[in-house]
Amino acid sequence: MSTPLEKTVVDPFGTTVVEDYDHLYEEFGIEPFRPLLDQVPKPSMYMRRNVIFGHRDFQRILDTIKRQDDFAVMSGIKPTGEFHLGTLMTAREVIYFQRQGATAFYCIADVEAYEDNKIPFEKSERIAVGNVADLLALGFDPAKGYIYRQSKEERVKDLAIIFGGGVTLSTMTAIYGERHIGLYLSALIQAGDILMPQLQDFHGPKPTVVPVGVDQDPHLRLTRDLANKFSRKYNFIPPSSTLHKIMKGLDGSPKMSKRNPMSYFTLNEKPESISKKISEAFTGGRATVEEQHKLGGIPEICPIYELCMYQFVEDDEQIIKTYNECRSGDLLCGEHKDRATKIVLDFVKEHRRKRQKCLDTARDILQIS
Amino acid sequence: MSTPLEKTVVDPFGTTVVEDYDHLYEEFGIEPFRPLLDQVPKPSMYMRRNVIFGHRDFQRILDTIKRQDDFAVMSGIKPTGEFHLGTLMTAREVIYFQRQGATAFYCIADVEAYEDNKIPFEKSERIAVGNVADLLALGFDPAKGYIYRQSKEERVKDLAIIFGGGVTLSTMTAIYGERHIGLYLSALIQAGDILMPQLQDFHGPKPTVVPVGVDQDPHLRLTRDLANKFSRKYNFIPPSSTLHKIMKGLDGSPKMSKRNPMSYFTLNEKPESISKKISEAFTGGRATVEEQHKLGGIPEICPIYELCMYQFVEDDEQIIKTYNECRSGDLLCGEHKDRATKIVLDFVKEHRRKRQKCLDTARDILQIS
Repeated sequence: MSTPLEKTVVDPFGTTVVEDYDHLYEEFGIEPFRPLLDQVPKPSMYMRRNVIFGHRDFQRILDTIKRQDDFAVMSGIKPTGEFHLGTLMTAREVIYFQRQGATAFYCIADVEAYEDNKIPFEKSERIAVGNVADLLALGFDPAKGYIYRQSKEERVKDLAIIFGGGVTLSTMTAIYGERHIGLYLSALIQAGDILMPQLQDFHGPKPTVVPVGVDQDPHLRLTRDLANKFSRKYNFIPPSSTLHKIMKGLDGSPKMSKRNPMSYFTLNEKPESISKKISEAFTGGRATVEEQHKLGGIPEICPIYELCMYQFVEDDEQIIKTYNECRSGDLLCGEHKDRATKIVLDFVKEHRRKRQKCLDTARDILQIS
Repeated sequence: MSTPLEKTVVDPFGTTVVEDYDHLYEEFGIEPFRPLLDQVPKPSMYMRRNVIFGHRDFQRILDTIKRQDDFAVMSGIKPTGEFHLGTLMTAREVIYFQRQGATAFYCIADVEAYEDNKIPFEKSERIAVGNVADLLALGFDPAKGYIYRQSKEERVKDLAIIFGGGVTLSTMTAIYGERHIGLYLSALIQAGDILMPQLQDFHGPKPTVVPVGVDQDPHLRLTRDLANKFSRKYNFIPPSSTLHKIMKGLDGSPKMSKRNPMSYFTLNEKPESISKKISEAFTGGRATVEEQHKLGGIPEICPIYELCMYQFVEDDEQIIKTYNECRSGDLLCGEHKDRATKIVLDFVKEHRRKRQKCLDTARDILQIS
C-alpha cells in the first residue's frame, strides 16, 4: 500500500521539483508522520494511508489532545476557483481536527489570490461564497470555528505589519524567489493567519496544527521563525503542521494544475466532464489486455488508484482489495475507471445537494449580500 | 538672499549625499519652483525664499486654486520623538495649504516608525499625542482636515495591499536599497497615505499636493508611478509635490540629525538647552573680530542665518537687512546668536503655551485615553 518515491513541488508559488519525499526529511527538517501513527486516537484516512507523510512538531498536538487541552487547527483556501481535490483534502483535514476538539480557523486567502493570481477582490468575494458552502457541506461546524477573509481581518493585516520588521529580503527571496512586493506581503499575511488563533482575542497562545500540502511547507517554516522572533511579545507557540502528498494529475502529469484542465476536476464540474476526464486518464496499466493479465497493473503510478486511495474510498479493506486485484492483473483499467467514476459521481451529486443548502449560510458568514 | 549649492540627501531612509540641487532637476525630474512663484496668490515664506526650491506637477495645484476647485494637501510625521525644525516646516506647509482652501490630511506614520525605527506602537501612540498637539498649536484646523494613524486607518492598509501587486522588487531595491520586508511594506503604506485623499470616501479623485523635504521625494516618485498604474480602477490624479531644502545642522553638519544632539533642537526642549546649542553653533564668521569687520561674514554657510531665514523671521525686509549687516561685517556672530536665541525662545515659549491647551484635543483626535 506504500507509494513509490515520486516527484513533488516545494515552492508554493512555483514549480521547484524535488526528487522524493525522503529528500524533504533531510533538507528541510520535515519529520516522517508514520512513527506517530500509533499515538493518534482516531487516525484519519489520510494518516492511515501515509498521504499525510510528514509533519513539524506534531507531537505537541498529540500531547495536547491527550491532556484534553485547548488547541487550534488552521488552514484555508485561495479563492481562485471551485473546490478541487487539493482544497478538498485540506478542508477534510481541518474538519477532522475540529472533530478531535480543535477550534477551527479557515481562511479565505483573498489577498494571496490578488497578489499571486491577480484576482480582484470583487471577483474573489463571489468565488469565496461557493468555497465556504463547499466547506460547510463537507461538515465544517461554524459554531466551533471561524471563517474569514484576509482582506477583512484587521488582526491578520496588523500581524503582517508587525512581522514585516522581522523578515529580511534575503529570507524572502530564498523562499519565494524574486517576486513583486505584494507577494512578500501576502506571505506575511499568511503568517498572520497562522498565528492569529494564538492572540488573546481567541484565548491564545495555544498549540495550533496547520494541515497543508507539502508545497505549502515554506510558509510554515517562515511562520515558525516568526513565532520564535516575536515570542517575547506574544508568547507564540511555534505552529505544528501535518504535510500531505500532492496528488498526481489524472493525465499522468506530476501535479494537478489549472493550466492543464485534463489533469483535475472540481467538485462543481458537470458529471459528463468528470466522467470524460476519468475515462481518458493515464493509468498504471499495460499496453495490452494480455500483458495486463500476465504482468498485472502498477497501482503505484496510477492516478485512478490514487483518486480512490487518497480521496474517495473510505474503507481500507476495499483499497487493499483493489490494490491486489490490480497487481494480480484481475482488474483491468477500464473496469477500474468505471468503478471510480461511479464512486466520484455519487459523491459529487450528494455533495452538491448539501452545498446548495449551505450557500445562504456561507453568504452570512462572509457578510456578503 | 539665495543660498549656495549645498550637499543634501535624497534617500529617505539613508544618507546618500548628492552634490547640489541642480543635480536633482536633471537626474530625478524635479522642476524648479521659482518660475511658478508669480502665479501663487499668497506665497508662503518658504516659497518666497526659495526654501521650497522644487516641485512636481505643482502647476496643477495652481490651476485648481485659480478655478476654486477642491484639492487636498497631505503630509505627516513619523512619531519617533518631539517636533523639530524639519517637522515644523512640513506642518507649516500643510497649514499654509489648508488656509488656501485645501482639505488637509496629516498622517501619523506609526507603521514607518515601527518598521524603520523599531518604535513599538505603544510608544509611538504616546509620542503622537504630543506631535498632534504641536500641529494644532501651529494652527492646523481639525474641522477642515483629517489626522490619523497609519496603523488604525484601514483604507491606507488596504491600498498598500492593492499597490503591492504593482511594485517589483527591483523598483523597491532601487529606491530603498536592500532592507527588511517591513520597510518596503511601510513604503506601500505611505503611497496609500498619499492617495487616500483621492478615494470616494473623501470625495476624490482630486488634485493633491504633498509638501515634503527633498529627502522624501523617492516616496513621491513611487506614488506617482502607482497612481498611474492603478488609474483605471481609481481614477487617481498623480499627486503634486513641493520640495523644500533640508536645513544644515547647527554644528555645521550637512543635516540635522538625532544621532548628533548639538545639530538640532526640538520645540519642547528646555530653553537653556536651546540657548546653549545656538550659542555654540557653527557660523559663517571669520577667525577674528578684526577679520570679520574687514571681510564680512558668509551668511550662505551659516546655520544661524539659516535658522532665521528658513524658520523664525517672518519679515523679508528684516532678513535682507541681517544679510547685508553680516556681509558688510557690521554684525558679529555673537550678536546674531543673541538675537536668534531671543527670537527662538520667544517663539518656543508661546508655542508651548498653546500646545498645552491642545493636548486633550489631540488625545480625542487620536482616540487615545
